[in-house]
Amino acid sequence: MKHFVSMKHLTAEELLQLVQLATDIQAQGVSGYREQLFAANLFFEPSTRTKMSFTVAERKLGLEVLDFAAEASSVTKGETVYDTAKTLQSIGASVLVIRHPEEHTAAMLTEKLDIPVINAGDGKGEHPTQCLLDLMTIYQEYGRFKDLKIVIAGDIRHSRVARSNAMALRNLGAQVFAAGKPEWMDESIGIPVLDMDEAVEQCDVMMLLRIQFERHETKREAAGYLENYGLTVEREKRMQRHAIIMHPAPVNRGIEIDDSLVEAPRSRIFRQMENGVAARMAVILTLLEGWGIKHGYNLDKREAVNS
Amino acid sequence: MKHFVSMKHLTAEELLQLVQLATDIQAQGVSGYREQLFAANLFFEPSTRTKMSFTVAERKLGLEVLDFAAEASSVTKGETVYDTAKTLQSIGASVLVIRHPEEHTAAMLTEKLDIPVINAGDGKGEHPTQCLLDLMTIYQEYGRFKDLKIVIAGDIRHSRVARSNAMALRNLGAQVFAAGKPEWMDESIGIPVLDMDEAVEQCDVMMLLRIQFERHETKREAAGYLENYGLTVEREKRMQRHAIIMHPAPVNRGIEIDDSLVEAPRSRIFRQMENGVAARMAVILTLLEGWGIKHGYNLDKREAVNS
Amino acid sequence: MKHFVSMKHLTAEELLQLVQLATDIQAQGVSGYREQLFAANLFFEPSTRTKMSFTVAERKLGLEVLDFAAEASSVTKGETVYDTAKTLQSIGASVLVIRHPEEHTAAMLTEKLDIPVINAGDGKGEHPTQCLLDLMTIYQEYGRFKDLKIVIAGDIRHSRVARSNAMALRNLGAQVFAAGKPEWMDESIGIPVLDMDEAVEQCDVMMLLRIQFERHETKREAAGYLENYGLTVEREKRMQRHAIIMHPAPVNRGIEIDDSLVEAPRSRIFRQMENGVAARMAVILTLLEGWGIKHGYNLDKREAVNS
Repeated sequence: MKHFVSMKHLTAEELLQLVQLATDIQAQGVSGYREQLFAANLFFEPSTRTKMSFTVAERKLGLEVLDFAAEASSVTKGETVYDTAKTLQSIGASVLVIRHPEEHTAAMLTEKLDIPVINAGDGKGEHPTQCLLDLMTIYQEYGRFKDLKIVIAGDIRHSRVARSNAMALRNLGAQVFAAGKPEWMDESIGIPVLDMDEAVEQCDVMMLLRIQFERHETKREAAGYLENYGLTVEREKRMQRHAIIMHPAPVNRGIEIDDSLVEAPRSRIFRQMENGVAARMAVILTLLEGWGIKHGYNLDKREAVNS
Repeated sequence: MKHFVSMKHLTAEELLQLVQLATDIQAQGVSGYREQLFAANLFFEPSTRTKMSFTVAERKLGLEVLDFAAEASSVTKGETVYDTAKTLQSIGASVLVIRHPEEHTAAMLTEKLDIPVINAGDGKGEHPTQCLLDLMTIYQEYGRFKDLKIVIAGDIRHSRVARSNAMALRNLGAQVFAAGKPEWMDESIGIPVLDMDEAVEQCDVMMLLRIQFERHETKREAAGYLENYGLTVEREKRMQRHAIIMHPAPVNRGIEIDDSLVEAPRSRIFRQMENGVAARMAVILTLLEGWGIKHGYNLDKREAVNS
Repeated sequence: MKHFVSMKHLTAEELLQLVQLATDIQAQGVSGYREQLFAANLFFEPSTRTKMSFTVAERKLGLEVLDFAAEASSVTKGETVYDTAKTLQSIGASVLVIRHPEEHTAAMLTEKLDIPVINAGDGKGEHPTQCLLDLMTIYQEYGRFKDLKIVIAGDIRHSRVARSNAMALRNLGAQVFAAGKPEWMDESIGIPVLDMDEAVEQCDVMMLLRIQFERHETKREAAGYLENYGLTVEREKRMQRHAIIMHPAPVNRGIEIDDSLVEAPRSRIFRQMENGVAARMAVILTLLEGWGIKHGYNLDKREAVNS
């Protein structure tokens, strides 16, 4: 594997291997690279979780972290993303993590750089490491993906998380459904739509999405959202006993989900964050190996998990 | 000790042990933790000294530093402080340092997180690590606190530094006085008020406070401040031979203190900054031990200093 | 050598030793200091290349990095540059790197601090580490400086890069020329002016400067710049076979240089960035040695290269 920018290019087997590797890393830990290597984190949009999670993942692998803050950089002087990325490669980065408001930015860089590129979110495009940590969380719960009923609820149309997850989960044999405001559904993703009240009763996984006020929504549109489309206390009571709640966070408490449910027993929201570190370590290890940078960890011993 | 958020909860003995530990660390150094641990620094207000001082303290203890920059984080997407802090715990932080404009933020987090919380300044509340480094500075000078005359001069009412120091110093047996504009005095802190001209002649320690233009003052209010309430060259000449000048910085040169006095022989202002690193190392070591994370350093051997 | 703030103070021999040291470091690598040391990077202006390059250089030498972000610091509370710098020294920095919009800021600090100061760009003053990496790039190409024809093209008057390079290159025996808009020429630098069309045909090195829109230029002034004064495809064809193109970056593609030439075979633009890391390592090693902080690396073994 040379880059990690989209779930489109990954086979079910590759996905399962990554899930397994992340699970192993979380259970057993892994030592750092002996060589001094640098990772560059380029975040052109605000982030807490993803950026800090990459930082922890990189440090646990012993990588030095180049923390590129767009707002204090030459981007303010009009430098292109490519020139910035190439600069970081030139000064010694061995892996590049990029979040950018425009779709396909990470993909464009893969064509021009000689180091692995990881997409940490590209506009409304994809968010493949979030997807991987979601897969890991589901796998920890159920030990499989086949025939699980997974509902992605919220603004499907604008969500890079929805796009990556819908592709990967169907690839792995899950039954994926959408729920939410009719104008937020997106036929191009090709998943059937359920009413939220049906959805809560049928799903094994309720994967809520964040309303992205910072992208397109006004606060006014949030009025009544919880009652009409969100996970209220009443709806949660009708979920199956084993079903779990997921959310990529940051959560708008009281909008997508009732405040009291964020840390409910069936919520895996903070567990997802924990998993993010191991998931990102697995991606970095796999990519660096793909570019010939060996780590003591024996990646070949991995067995693909069963889907 | 589980958290470090207020001077209210600390006994004189605990304070003296921390001062002693900080002094020992400064004299002898201390090795880093063998385990890879992460510290998260969450600064929701600008800071140079405190943030950099924590960073140096953490690195000297071998801790990895997660530098959370509020302005490029999900806080801009409306995430709550609790969710941000819990996120940092979830991705692996073993200790959390927080500065926040609202009082009691750090205290609130201690009730909800499972890692030690250090208050690096909460609005007009407290600033306990600043207080500890002030104690350390005074102890280095006098070897005791009992019966020292310490004047805190300036905007007592709005100062978290004044609040923490008044509590701790009285607890340690010092005689603490206030000086400054009448409308800035604060009866609730319960320390007697002196006129600045008396104060300079009587004190062993002149602890100046910063006028916090960024909080509530207009530049216009600073006119005449130095002459009326600040430490002028003339007033400094009337100080006792052994008396010292302190200031938490950043200094408004020419307002709280005459420009030429900032680095006068009796000024300990930059010494305070030096001490901040050891003081913060002592706090982190003590808290991590309180949570069962052992360090090679033998904390039990410490002897409490005499007050 | 105690500080690195201007090319004015360096002899040809000192320059050549630094070039040689940087070249050796790039070829052979160098281990980190065994002692834990801190470098403070103070950037009061946006930067990608220089800041990241210093960070990589520092980490390769095993130094801890204190990354001072002016926009989230006490500078926003009105603290002076000196007080900020002295603070960083007080909390333990062993070397200070500073970029500041005002000329002579770094020089002022050398008079007041007890640690080495590196000028990473001071307004329209100088940019000596950029100059050193430029020297290194030219030396790699030609193995000498004597009698090389070097054209610095662009806004000479406002360029700290031009100022540092003109001094150092003439000191090393090169023939330095200027080219560009008449109102951007600067007699005080004392280098003869060539027309751009002559310049491209005669030079061994075409050193383009960046139009600094963020300093003084309006976008409107850029219209027609490429055709009149920039490096067009047509002009590039008339360059001598061996001649190289340099640019300190960030590049305004299509303004100083045709977009297609940025990565042309004769362009050394990204090579310059690579060299920046080794050049900065050489400076830090040399300065720390100048302050008595020894590194395993045997600096005395160096032979000065021939100019």
